[in-house]
Amino acid sequence: MKIDNPNPIQWHFSERAEQLKSSFIREILKITQQPEIISFAGGLPSPATFPVDAMKAAFDQVLSTTGKTALQYGPTDGYLPLRQWIADALSVNGASIVPQQVLMTSGSQQALDLLGKVLIDEGSRVLVETPSYLGALQAFSVYRPQFVSVETDEQGLLPGSVTKVADGARLLYALPNFQNPTGRSLSVERRVELVETCARHGLPLIEDDPYGALNYKGEPSPKMLTMNPDGVIYMGSFSKVLTPGIRLGYVVAPPPLARRLELAKQAADLHTSQLTQMVVHEVIKDGFLDRHIPNIRTLYGEQCQTMLAALSEHFPPGVTWTRPEGGMFIWVTLPKHIDAMKLLDQAIVNKVAFVPGAPFYANAPESNTLRLSFVTVPPERIRQGIAILGRLIAAQI
Amino acid sequence: MKIDNPNPIQWHFSERAEQLKSSFIREILKITQQPEIISFAGGLPSPATFPVDAMKAAFDQVLSTTGKTALQYGPTDGYLPLRQWIADALSVNGASIVPQQVLMTSGSQQALDLLGKVLIDEGSRVLVETPSYLGALQAFSVYRPQFVSVETDEQGLLPGSVTKVADGARLLYALPNFQNPTGRSLSVERRVELVETCARHGLPLIEDDPYGALNYKGEPSPKMLTMNPDGVIYMGSFSKVLTPGIRLGYVVAPPPLARRLELAKQAADLHTSQLTQMVVHEVIKDGFLDRHIPNIRTLYGEQCQTMLAALSEHFPPGVTWTRPEGGMFIWVTLPKHIDAMKLLDQAIVNKVAFVPGAPFYANAPESNTLRLSFVTVPPERIRQGIAILGRLIAAQI
Repeated sequence: MKIDNPNPIQWHFSERAEQLKSSFIREILKITQQPEIISFAGGLPSPATFPVDAMKAAFDQVLSTTGKTALQYGPTDGYLPLRQWIADALSVNGASIVPQQVLMTSGSQQALDLLGKVLIDEGSRVLVETPSYLGALQAFSVYRPQFVSVETDEQGLLPGSVTKVADGARLLYALPNFQNPTGRSLSVERRVELVETCARHGLPLIEDDPYGALNYKGEPSPKMLTMNPDGVIYMGSFSKVLTPGIRLGYVVAPPPLARRLELAKQAADLHTSQLTQMVVHEVIKDGFLDRHIPNIRTLYGEQCQTMLAALSEHFPPGVTWTRPEGGMFIWVTLPKHIDAMKLLDQAIVNKVAFVPGAPFYANAPESNTLRLSFVTVPPERIRQGIAILGRLIAAQI
Repeated sequence: MKIDNPNPIQWHFSERAEQLKSSFIREILKITQQPEIISFAGGLPSPATFPVDAMKAAFDQVLSTTGKTALQYGPTDGYLPLRQWIADALSVNGASIVPQQVLMTSGSQQALDLLGKVLIDEGSRVLVETPSYLGALQAFSVYRPQFVSVETDEQGLLPGSVTKVADGARLLYALPNFQNPTGRSLSVERRVELVETCARHGLPLIEDDPYGALNYKGEPSPKMLTMNPDGVIYMGSFSKVLTPGIRLGYVVAPPPLARRLELAKQAADLHTSQLTQMVVHEVIKDGFLDRHIPNIRTLYGEQCQTMLAALSEHFPPGVTWTRPEGGMFIWVTLPKHIDAMKLLDQAIVNKVAFVPGAPFYANAPESNTLRLSFVTVPPERIRQGIAILGRLIAAQI
């Protein structure tokens, strides 16, 4: 039945397809997944924290009681009780969020894609932190914006720097809590100032918050969404507080934008798995996260302390690093002459891996930076791996 | 903590966002979901066919044995054993498909979005059937192509009409088995001729095949993919043979395109739920579909016959309809002067619903057409609903 001698296709891809690059991190992960490598490269949460039994019980419960509904097509915006739960959880500090503002997505990454689709034209100016989250740069790049890197310091974004570039920009993308890749957090004063600055310029502010609940001590910082629900777009995820493999996130947007995002979602994949949404609601509806998240905080906090102690012991003078109070990452700055990409080659030979910092910069990469994750590596291996890295760096100073 | 008197945002959406329209079908479904309405409007499979127990057992099995892996981030291209299963199932009639050509997607709709993203620039010529699947028109529209409607007859696409418009077009999108919306199928001779025509012009041919397994009698027709795996892009789905709410589909593409689609998928949502993929593989790996699909065929075939008999009995002369041998839809052509959109208003007053045909046309809608689905309506209600529609139509002739 095969046809004879077909002409080979001369593929003509879209201009946007020519922009597509694989995430450097996902490429590294392929190399570093061998068990003998001590990998600080991952951005994966620790499977030790996955509530497998609770998920199993919830799948059983949902399929036993409402299986036919859970397995049928569902509404594009998502499962209403879960959207209500999210709206309620975000209605604090005087803010009132309604479920109509909440769109369920297939992970936060899809929210980034939909926001790019709906807000970015070719050449649109898009403001991002220096450095910024690689997955966001990748999602937005498809729509061919002009990225503008906003200055940051040890406390994150400098609102004054936003002022200079705000007019005419389509959006500012920020990750205020335990940022990926730096682990930095915005102070409360900075948050207020940033929200005010964006509001003054009519600039939509995207608050991406996958790690906000993972503070090791004290209370979580107030969300910028609650300071101006008409100007802030909030992104949340169940990946870091429950499990990532189910792909469940959400975006909370002012109504005119929420409606556009819903239409874009409908064209993109109709809706996110009903079953998954019903199961997650079943798991979390009675306060499960209040009992579960403290365990994640404790585990990650201890491993972070182990890594910080090892860095102090093994890294030579001239190297600096962030001291995160939550989240999953430490950011290291080497002396200017050391290229982290080359260091990675040596590290892999010595069975250690990390992610070089350069890909996290939208413009003007600083090649002497790198990102370390401590969440999936046991303490003894953290000490071992940091000692090896310390020796490799010291040899170049 | 709320900031004072923020400026309201003057939303500046992307040009592509201005194209976004809600699917007319999904809007109708909202109206017609009241239980007192006899709805032939749905495109939903019958929940009576959902294998809830098998799914429940598989979730239990996967979470009990490989829960931590199933709940962790996974590869962008998908779960390898499932991709291997799909590749094997498609390697028939002398074709050899490898898992590297298979990308798992969040339903077929996402495959349409990714294909549009990677293949369509603004103004690109995209060839579609007359009429075509609304979800595809919606997904492709986002990328602002120029649609070219290819002529069809009772056996579907006319390959000779493709020849006239093939040069320079980016793709031809076809649904050869029990098409949505018409229920028509391409004959084997037409398939060969179509694949040869596309190959001669180097035109990528998308074969969308959600209903191919739902033939009421005889053997399924050969897939165009197997006639030229280097020129045909095949789309499949578990929505119609298992359940749609889990959102699991796939696209099989020649390697250069498969690689681009994978990169686009990575930026769009990283990957589709690992857990869902592992569960579906667990359900189907030992021949479950061979035992399950015949039950769906029998149910849908009987309800199709009931509707065809009712149409013969109740619809007046001057009205014609298709006689599908599989799938979920019958396509009705009214006398030219009757507008199906106006008929729908009357029908809803009389507690019956269907989908007017006009939105399925990329160009030059034929307003005297409509789509009927018989799969979720019990036989007695099918007869009742068709009798009511017949009276409403007869009154206008």
